[in-house]
Amino acid sequence: MGSVICQLTVSLDGFVAGPDQRPDEPLGTGGERLHEWAFAGDAGPAVDADLASRHGEGVGAYIMGRNMFASGRGEWDLDWRGWWGEDPPYHVPVYVLTHYPRASLPMDGGTVFHFVTDGIESALAQAREAAGPANVQVSGGAETAREYLRAELVDQLYLHVTPLVLGAGERLWDGLDEMTFEPFEVTPSPAVTHIRYRVVRPTPG
Amino acid sequence: MGSVICQLTVSLDGFVAGPDQRPDEPLGTGGERLHEWAFAGDAGPAVDADLASRHGEGVGAYIMGRNMFASGRGEWDLDWRGWWGEDPPYHVPVYVLTHYPRASLPMDGGTVFHFVTDGIESALAQAREAAGPANVQVSGGAETAREYLRAELVDQLYLHVTPLVLGAGERLWDGLDEMTFEPFEVTPSPAVTHIRYRVVRPTPG
Repeated sequence: MGSVICQLTVSLDGFVAGPDQRPDEPLGTGGERLHEWAFAGDAGPAVDADLASRHGEGVGAYIMGRNMFASGRGEWDLDWRGWWGEDPPYHVPVYVLTHYPRASLPMDGGTVFHFVTDGIESALAQAREAAGPANVQVSGGAETAREYLRAELVDQLYLHVTPLVLGAGERLWDGLDEMTFEPFEVTPSPAVTHIRYRVVRPTPG
Repeated sequence: MGSVICQLTVSLDGFVAGPDQRPDEPLGTGGERLHEWAFAGDAGPAVDADLASRHGEGVGAYIMGRNMFASGRGEWDLDWRGWWGEDPPYHVPVYVLTHYPRASLPMDGGTVFHFVTDGIESALAQAREAAGPANVQVSGGAETAREYLRAELVDQLYLHVTPLVLGAGERLWDGLDEMTFEPFEVTPSPAVTHIRYRVVRPTPG
């Protein structure tokens, strides 16, 4: 069985998206700047381009929240096919948490969106089943990441820390008080700091 | 002339101290855990012990806020000689921002506390004068750090990111919206991630 890895890009002050997420700014005001490192290609540091190109390596299934799949659009729009065009960059099953049943949505390139209405544990069970020995990645948004972290279902938190202060938006850390982590792999670049944390489980007793 | 370096230990969620700072808990509830890396010695990772032992290297003068000098004690206590005993770990002049005039306070080992009542620029000018070619370190608390950062008087932000979520306390990032940084030196350890950031000055225009 693989690991459950929660991967997010976050500002120095702990925001994964800017304020006022809406259809024409799904990452909120200023939120796109968080992710520039992943799209800079040859214009950015080689280490970032390399990491971005290896996105998805070892991942057998993804989980995302409704907010990531259809931010600002309302989840009742059954014609919505995600933000990523007809060939989304996943190429494996993606389990989308939602309150509204919807038929699975096969896309080009191997991505299939499955809509899960019976909660995060069910989504994880389905994702694990699909992933087999590979990892399951929880991709966001922040609320979904927090739910999995709070439920102690995450093995690794993989953060890309973009060195800017957003000041407002969607917070990663709210409600995760008292959680501790252990950084075990740090990849620096002038544009962003990539840190893999092991989630430290509280000792029972 | 040296650099102005703001050095702080911060939680993942951006707190430099826990809530409810008071005389018997000057770093607030849970705040001491932030700084354990600096005091673990041989019980912690060697890289942290090494960095902690080199604290003060290249620093010719310190600046600190009233809150760091006398957190929770009230600044009218003219008998207060700081948290660090008779031989504080500075060994150079320390400029303490305050609203109350007070005579300079020479301690053992070369530390002299000077109390500055005419603002952050005056404290910096005095610290630069004392430091000569060495660096000036802004040591905290968060409010003092933020004041210097906002006034664009800081060259480097040196953060020690302790991998825990405090959830409440004294925030570093408030009011620093839109600031951007460039990480140029990252020192990982299993206990804490040490990151030196250059402060990116906005391009005029």
